[in-house]
Amino acid sequence: MKDVFIHPTALVETDQIGEGTKVWAFAHILKDAVIGRNCNIGDHNFIEGGASLGDGVVVKNGNMIWEGVHIEDAVFVGPHVFFTNDLFPRSKQLPEAAERGSRKENWLVPTRVKKGASLGAGAVILAGVTIGEYSLVAAGTLVSKDVPPYALVLGAPGRVRGWMCRCGLRLRLARGRATCGGCGLGYRRGRKGIELLGPKC
Amino acid sequence: MKDVFIHPTALVETDQIGEGTKVWAFAHILKDAVIGRNCNIGDHNFIEGGASLGDGVVVKNGNMIWEGVHIEDAVFVGPHVFFTNDLFPRSKQLPEAAERGSRKENWLVPTRVKKGASLGAGAVILAGVTIGEYSLVAAGTLVSKDVPPYALVLGAPGRVRGWMCRCGLRLRLARGRATCGGCGLGYRRGRKGIELLGPKC
Amino acid sequence: MKDVFIHPTALVETDQIGEGTKVWAFAHILKDAVIGRNCNIGDHNFIEGGASLGDGVVVKNGNMIWEGVHIEDAVFVGPHVFFTNDLFPRSKQLPEAAERGSRKENWLVPTRVKKGASLGAGAVILAGVTIGEYSLVAAGTLVSKDVPPYALVLGAPGRVRGWMCRCGLRLRLARGRATCGGCGLGYRRGRKGIELLGPKC
Repeated sequence: MKDVFIHPTALVETDQIGEGTKVWAFAHILKDAVIGRNCNIGDHNFIEGGASLGDGVVVKNGNMIWEGVHIEDAVFVGPHVFFTNDLFPRSKQLPEAAERGSRKENWLVPTRVKKGASLGAGAVILAGVTIGEYSLVAAGTLVSKDVPPYALVLGAPGRVRGWMCRCGLRLRLARGRATCGGCGLGYRRGRKGIELLGPKC
Repeated sequence: MKDVFIHPTALVETDQIGEGTKVWAFAHILKDAVIGRNCNIGDHNFIEGGASLGDGVVVKNGNMIWEGVHIEDAVFVGPHVFFTNDLFPRSKQLPEAAERGSRKENWLVPTRVKKGASLGAGAVILAGVTIGEYSLVAAGTLVSKDVPPYALVLGAPGRVRGWMCRCGLRLRLARGRATCGGCGLGYRRGRKGIELLGPKC
Repeated sequence: MKDVFIHPTALVETDQIGEGTKVWAFAHILKDAVIGRNCNIGDHNFIEGGASLGDGVVVKNGNMIWEGVHIEDAVFVGPHVFFTNDLFPRSKQLPEAAERGSRKENWLVPTRVKKGASLGAGAVILAGVTIGEYSLVAAGTLVSKDVPPYALVLGAPGRVRGWMCRCGLRLRLARGRATCGGCGLGYRRGRKGIELLGPKC
């Protein structure tokens, strides 16, 4: 693992970890987790086998990224985001639940976070949702259904309350169009929320 | 402690820990915590003296189980469930609060989680509640009062929104009766929510 | 660092830490964090450079106290309180967000927690707020605006639902006045919530 920084107290058991990635104190990455390049994985994180991260992902501290959670390039995962992979969990030691728990296809529900999205501190992500490109899930939001690209989502349960530019600033739509006051990117209302205008469309 | 697995980075200071239990990385179990058999205690957990776990309890990662929290057999504690044991906490270094803080009977309020219950990721459990047998507290729920047996509770504050089978599937009641579509167990409406039908009643 | 207790598994990289402070297992305090005297910093905490704590602060377990978060004397920070310092976070590896991310004045928003306040388990504190003296933020509250002194705040978003004495008990106001049933301190309604009566006013 060339050019990977692993803090002396971190435990990294996977060998699928890309160049330039940093893993900080007391983090634990299990065998068969797949981690891209140039990721920054903070203290006290736990990443399970069967989870995947793209390139340039920031994982702030104290996250648990379970099997079945797939995170694309350049996503920001805030501190203590709550992923789940089973909507109806039971202890596997409970006799009545042993059969259901014994086969993953009975309970394992995947979650996908698309490119450039940001998940705020303490957001709860119910298993099975897809979080769209460049969206922003505000701190403390309960995400119980899919999030459209570029959407600002907040509340419990989370609802779309606005639209975000790729650069991180909030957009103001007028007659279905918006230009970012920071970086100048243009957007228009599309089928599923908004979409980028111009050559990059 | 025969047949107890303790990860090399975990700190286990209690000697009351049952056979077959596993304690994973960076977990810390304090003196006088009581832990049953065949429990699975994930990374980054903290269990205080005066807390107790029955047999077959799953404690996912990053939990803090304080003095006064009592968890019965085969409970599932999801990631980052927030237990509390004081409804009005203050720093003990605050002079005006020093007297109240100096005696446990002034502030310590116990919490009980009954057999087979499941607590979802990031649920907040206010001190003093009892969470009923086989109930399911959904991820992100704020539990501020007792939860009936078999209840599905969600929201902030949490409300009863349905009923769960012991096996983990949701029940559909019709005329006060339900049969689980998965495992076939039968239930009927009872005094406090629902109860199991037949020989096990 | 005279009379500072540092657990053998804790990492303390700052040299600005006051007498009598204790740092517990798997905690990590970074260079240039400023920590006062007689603080109690629990397991699995993370405190960043540019954060500050006064004297007598209790930091329960699993907190992340970021650059720009300033906590005054005798505050109680419950388990897993979510601080933030950027309202619109993005991965710094996202090309469209690189310019905004490159200068702290673009995104760093400070937070202040005033003397004697208490923050309950799992509370989410949005960047930029000030939390008033001796207030109590209930467990699971989303704090999105300033909290008045002595206020009891709860809900998502948090609203003022009552008033707290310095000692930690709830006050009952009658005709704009209250005397604490526990410690006897007196209060009256003031410009911003309530204020202490008598010689300490």
